[in-house]
Amino acid sequence: MSTKPYRIDNLQYANWSEGIFRQMRAAGLDAVHATLVYHEDFRAMVRRLTSWQALFRDFHTLIMPGRSVEDIEAARASDRTAIFFGFQNPSPIENDIGLVALCHDLGCRFMQLSYNNQSLLASGCAEDVDGGITRMGHEVIAEMNRVGMVVDMSHAGERSTLEAIDISRRPVAVTHANPASWHAVPRNVSEDVLRALANNGGMLGFSLYPHHMVPQCTLEAFCTMVARTAERIGVATLGIGSDLCQGQPDSVVMWMRYGHWTQHRPPAAFPPMPSWFQDSCGFHHLESGLEAVGFNPDERAAILGENWYRFYAQSFQPHPTPHPSPRP
Amino acid sequence: MSTKPYRIDNLQYANWSEGIFRQMRAAGLDAVHATLVYHEDFRAMVRRLTSWQALFRDFHTLIMPGRSVEDIEAARASDRTAIFFGFQNPSPIENDIGLVALCHDLGCRFMQLSYNNQSLLASGCAEDVDGGITRMGHEVIAEMNRVGMVVDMSHAGERSTLEAIDISRRPVAVTHANPASWHAVPRNVSEDVLRALANNGGMLGFSLYPHHMVPQCTLEAFCTMVARTAERIGVATLGIGSDLCQGQPDSVVMWMRYGHWTQHRPPAAFPPMPSWFQDSCGFHHLESGLEAVGFNPDERAAILGENWYRFYAQSFQPHPTPHPSPRP
Repeated sequence: MSTKPYRIDNLQYANWSEGIFRQMRAAGLDAVHATLVYHEDFRAMVRRLTSWQALFRDFHTLIMPGRSVEDIEAARASDRTAIFFGFQNPSPIENDIGLVALCHDLGCRFMQLSYNNQSLLASGCAEDVDGGITRMGHEVIAEMNRVGMVVDMSHAGERSTLEAIDISRRPVAVTHANPASWHAVPRNVSEDVLRALANNGGMLGFSLYPHHMVPQCTLEAFCTMVARTAERIGVATLGIGSDLCQGQPDSVVMWMRYGHWTQHRPPAAFPPMPSWFQDSCGFHHLESGLEAVGFNPDERAAILGENWYRFYAQSFQPHPTPHPSPRP
Repeated sequence: MSTKPYRIDNLQYANWSEGIFRQMRAAGLDAVHATLVYHEDFRAMVRRLTSWQALFRDFHTLIMPGRSVEDIEAARASDRTAIFFGFQNPSPIENDIGLVALCHDLGCRFMQLSYNNQSLLASGCAEDVDGGITRMGHEVIAEMNRVGMVVDMSHAGERSTLEAIDISRRPVAVTHANPASWHAVPRNVSEDVLRALANNGGMLGFSLYPHHMVPQCTLEAFCTMVARTAERIGVATLGIGSDLCQGQPDSVVMWMRYGHWTQHRPPAAFPPMPSWFQDSCGFHHLESGLEAVGFNPDERAAILGENWYRFYAQSFQPHPTPHPSPRP
């Protein structure tokens, strides 16, 4: 470990620009998990990748592609931020389990099994009924475990989340959500999910998205919530997944919410982010806020990046025993 | 109605050839619902359509495309069989509800909401848990109702099937299955489903696929099952969906069963069809068999095609009130 702790934001989906990448640098972010797609199929996901090629080329002094934890060290050594890709929905693998390995080859390191709605793999937090992990879902979790792609249950239903944690033989992440005991919305997670994550080496990334926080949430209220969560499940499970969506037009939140699955599309808009978390530099406020509620330097370092660093180190390589045990 | 009743087989998936089309003619089939795809996406479905263009061109004296019930009359008038297309899985609409109308434009008249496994719309009969019709499923059923595409629940779970019948404002079909009370396999349908179909103007197509029938099923046993079913729910709900898969290599049953959703692919093979239903000409045997168990000529005509004819007449046009009532 470097003497200066690694700092990681494990969820952003900005309208990427030089200014945003400069904020990442000013915030001291060594790595960012960037959402590559919401509802795109494989081919459209590849198009997003080729757009990122241009960003990596044009802003090569600020960012670099992240594939393994060593890339975070390389980014630190060259004063850059390593960008790791994730899918918020399994749509890029379509109905073909073979695409899991190809998506990993292309750089995908996190994949949500569902996004609000039912998917082929799992149910979403907005469905009335959550039937749990499907037949294909069992197969895909095993394949994600094999290749080194993290199972992310941020937008899943509770039953699906608990089953995924149970089925997966590698730790699971909820990359961006908060405890429902603090703010009771379907996107936040139950105490059962928190305990299951903690008991299985998983991670929770606290979200700064206003809908996931109490109304008019202050920095102190947020950091107090982090402290209460740490008291219940320990510090080692906790990180940040800010859900920053800087510079995105409201058409993007319409895309997130409605994709193409419905013709009923009431207008939707991004909520304003809190004054203390307008961009990546909000990490500096989090550092002070966590100190003010009593976290010591090691604990602050753990929450602001070191925990994700450790999680990356154990999650992105192929599993040492590549094939799951034979099925009954 | 023509004096000679219309004869329709509402499910085949053959390795199409001149010989098979000649058998349709010899069987007196005025229409056949042909499965176009199992797990294909939109683009791959379009490729299947362009393959059919060649069949319609090469065998224009034997078959013609079917889009509406009037095409059955045109087929009869020209001694041909009208081919109507259906999907066994909603995979061609991908995650885009707008594709429902485009698929109808391209000729799709039946779409199963799921095929054994969970889909984005409904659960399948092979899943451990059936959570019912999903959020997107509700939307897609309304859109299918609007454009005139039949909701087919042949490979769905029971809860999904009952919910679909309840949600759909047009009659639903189970195009190829038998009563589970006769042969208890997940692919066959419960008495609750039979009653719900009958009460809503829906249709059951009896299947001749061996796995859906009692072992070594005789013509008499099959026709007796039809008679017992008619006693319970009436004749008007009943038709034939033979599930003939003539001339297909076993790789096709592997494709049906496994698609690309799993890497565990134990060998699978087509079972031999009964001696009395080797091809479309089995309809002649059904005619005699139904007579032998006591069906009168009108009832036999209804079961062997007239019921499907009436169902086609009411199902394939846009709904007269095009938009569903506003959502709450």
